[in-house]
Amino acid sequence: MHDATPRFGFRLLAQDGAARTGEITTPRGVIRTPAFMPVGTAATVKALYPEQVKAAGADIVLANTYHLMLRPGPERIARLGGLHSFMRWEGPILTDSGGFQVMSLGKLRTLSEDGVKFQSHLDGSVHMLSPERAVEIQCLLGSDIQMQLDECLELPAEKAEMKRAMELSLRWAERSRTAFERMSAPGQALFAIVQGGVDPELRRQSAEALVAMDFPGYAVGGLAVGEGHEVMVRTLQGVVPFLPADKPHYLMGVGTPLDLIESVRRGIDMFDCVLPTRNGRHGLAYTWGGRVNLKNACHAEDLSPLDALSTCPAARDYSRAYLHHLVKSGELLGSMLLSWANIAFYQELMAAMRAAIADKRFDAWAEETKRKLAAAPDA
Amino acid sequence: MHDATPRFGFRLLAQDGAARTGEITTPRGVIRTPAFMPVGTAATVKALYPEQVKAAGADIVLANTYHLMLRPGPERIARLGGLHSFMRWEGPILTDSGGFQVMSLGKLRTLSEDGVKFQSHLDGSVHMLSPERAVEIQCLLGSDIQMQLDECLELPAEKAEMKRAMELSLRWAERSRTAFERMSAPGQALFAIVQGGVDPELRRQSAEALVAMDFPGYAVGGLAVGEGHEVMVRTLQGVVPFLPADKPHYLMGVGTPLDLIESVRRGIDMFDCVLPTRNGRHGLAYTWGGRVNLKNACHAEDLSPLDALSTCPAARDYSRAYLHHLVKSGELLGSMLLSWANIAFYQELMAAMRAAIADKRFDAWAEETKRKLAAAPDA
Repeated sequence: MHDATPRFGFRLLAQDGAARTGEITTPRGVIRTPAFMPVGTAATVKALYPEQVKAAGADIVLANTYHLMLRPGPERIARLGGLHSFMRWEGPILTDSGGFQVMSLGKLRTLSEDGVKFQSHLDGSVHMLSPERAVEIQCLLGSDIQMQLDECLELPAEKAEMKRAMELSLRWAERSRTAFERMSAPGQALFAIVQGGVDPELRRQSAEALVAMDFPGYAVGGLAVGEGHEVMVRTLQGVVPFLPADKPHYLMGVGTPLDLIESVRRGIDMFDCVLPTRNGRHGLAYTWGGRVNLKNACHAEDLSPLDALSTCPAARDYSRAYLHHLVKSGELLGSMLLSWANIAFYQELMAAMRAAIADKRFDAWAEETKRKLAAAPDA
Repeated sequence: MHDATPRFGFRLLAQDGAARTGEITTPRGVIRTPAFMPVGTAATVKALYPEQVKAAGADIVLANTYHLMLRPGPERIARLGGLHSFMRWEGPILTDSGGFQVMSLGKLRTLSEDGVKFQSHLDGSVHMLSPERAVEIQCLLGSDIQMQLDECLELPAEKAEMKRAMELSLRWAERSRTAFERMSAPGQALFAIVQGGVDPELRRQSAEALVAMDFPGYAVGGLAVGEGHEVMVRTLQGVVPFLPADKPHYLMGVGTPLDLIESVRRGIDMFDCVLPTRNGRHGLAYTWGGRVNLKNACHAEDLSPLDALSTCPAARDYSRAYLHHLVKSGELLGSMLLSWANIAFYQELMAAMRAAIADKRFDAWAEETKRKLAAAPDA
C-alpha cells in the first residue's frame, strides 16, 4: 500500500477561472480534486459498507477525532493497527482536530491558551484537547491528512471575539506544526485552518500568517455555521485569493450541491459534509433533478427509480414507491439505500465538476446544473 | 421467470431417521429443504439488500400479510406489479395469513366465526381479516406459498379453549381453500396450519382433518409462543407422524439453532424466524462456536473475525473489535453486518443439515454441532 518514498503532494491539472481540478497524492492513493469526502464520524460512513463508498467514487473519507478519542480511544485504535484497517478503508483518511465537535458536543468546556478542557457527551469523563494532543491522536489513528486544532466560534460573533479566536488559532497552528514534525510518519500532511469569521480583514490576516508558516494544505474553517450561502460565498471570495495556488484548499463542513458548485467556482478543492448521509437517513435524496423528499405521498405509486442513468444500484434499481414505503415504515433499508444513493450523487457531482473544469466550461455547466437542481425541489 | 407449466411440487431426496432433505419446486425457483426463510416483515429483510439474502443461500423469504395489508396495502402492491418486483426478490415468497400478528399487534380485536376485526397498531384504522380476505390479500401480493388464516392462542390455555380455536381454524382452512381455488394463479400453493396447542390429541385431530382436505403443504402453528424448547419438541414429535410424508412440513416462527436441529430431526422441512435479524440488530451474532454477544468488553481488542472460514464478508472480513465498537456506538453498520452474518450462518446451518441427511449421518452431525454451539455461549 505504501510506495518506497511515501510523499504528500498536489498538482493542478486544469483551471477555469478560479475553479481548479487536480490531484492530491498520498502514500495511500490519489485524491481527485475537487473532492467530496464522505464523513465517517465514528469510523463508519453511516449505513454504508466501505466497498460502497469506494465504488461510489470516493477517494478519501473523513473521520472525527472528537468521536474516536472518546470511543474507542486513539490508543486502542493504534494497538489494533490504526484507523484504516480498523474501519476497512485502504484509501486516504482525513481527520479533523476535534475542535469543532468539542465546541458543539462537549460539556463544561474551559478554553485556555493551552487548549480545551471538556467533558465527554457520552459518559461525562474529563478530557483535555491541546494542539499537541490533537496531533498525537491523529498520529495514533494514522490519518493521512491531519488538521490543526483551532477555536471555532459560533456566528454571529463580535469582531474582537473573532480576532481573539483567530489569533489563538494561529498560535495553535504553530504548536500543531511543531508537534506534527516530531510525531508524524512520512507521507502524512498537516493542514492549517484559516479563521476570522465573516470579517474579510481578519480572514486575510489569518491566511497570510498561516501561509508564512508554509503548510501543505489550507482549510477555510468556521463557515457553514449558520451564516447562510451568500455570506459564505462572499467570505470565500475574500479569502481564497490569499491562499497559495499550488496547495489544496479545503472548505470544512460544506455543504449542499449549490454550496459545492459555488465554492468550487471560487477555488475550493476539498469538501466534507454529513448532509448526504444524514439527509439520506431522513428520507431525502439528492438527484440531478433536485432534492427528493421520499416521505411525500406523490411517490407512493411511482415505479421510476431516483435516477435510471446512475451507476449506483440504490439510485437505479429501486422504485420511488418502494423507497417511499421503506422511509414511511422506518426500515433500515431505506436509510441504507438513500445514504448510498446520496453519496453516489455527491461523487457524480464532483466528477462532473472536474470534467467541466478540464473542458473549460465550468460556468456554463454550473448554470445549467443549478437550473436542473432547482427544477423540482423536494418533488 | 415462469416456465411454461408453472407447478408447485415437493420431492424427497434423502431421509435419515425422521429427518428429510428434498426440494420444493415453484414457478419462481427451487427451495432446498430443510429451508430457513429469512423474515421480510414489511417487504424487506431488515438491514439487508436482497442480493445479500440471495447470496447468503436463501431460496425463499417470508413476508407478513398483517404488516403489508396496513402499509402500503395489498391493492397498492398489486398495482405496482406485486410483491416480488416491489421488494426486488425474484425467488419464491411465502406469506403468512396475518392471523398471528393480528393477535400480537392488533388493537381491540373481535373474533367471530367470520374472522377477526381489529384496529391497526399504526393508525387505529379498523380492518377485517377473514379467511377469504387473507387469501385475497396474499393473491394481491402474489406470494408463491400462502397460509390459511388460523386462530393463534397464547399458551398456556385451557384445553376447551385450545379445542375451540383448533376447530375454528379447521373451518377457516376449508373456507381458505375454497377462496384460494377461486382466486389463485397457477403454481401458487396454500398451506394448512395444524393447531391444538400442546395437547397431543387435539394436534392429532387437527392434523387428520387437514390431511383429509389434501393441502400441498402443512404447517405446525401455535408453537414458539413461550412453551419452551422441550415442550415444543415433544409436541412436534407427536404431530409430525400424522402429516403426509410427501408434503412439506413447515414449523412457523422457529427458532434458535438448537430448535432448528431438533425440529429437522423430527421431520420439519421449513422454518422462519426473526431471531437472526432481530438479534443481529441487538449485537448478537450466531457462529459455529456459539452465540457471541458483541457488546461484551472481551471483544474490544479482538482482531479475529466472527468466522474466518465463512463465505459471508460480514463474518469473515470485519474484526470483532470493530463490530464491538459499532454495536457500542449504535452505528447502523453494526446492525447491517450482524444481520448479514446471522442470515448467512442460518443458511450455512441449513446447508450442513441437508448434507448430513444426504450422507445419513444426521444424528452424529447434530450431536457434534450441538456441542460446538454450546461451547462458548455469548463469548
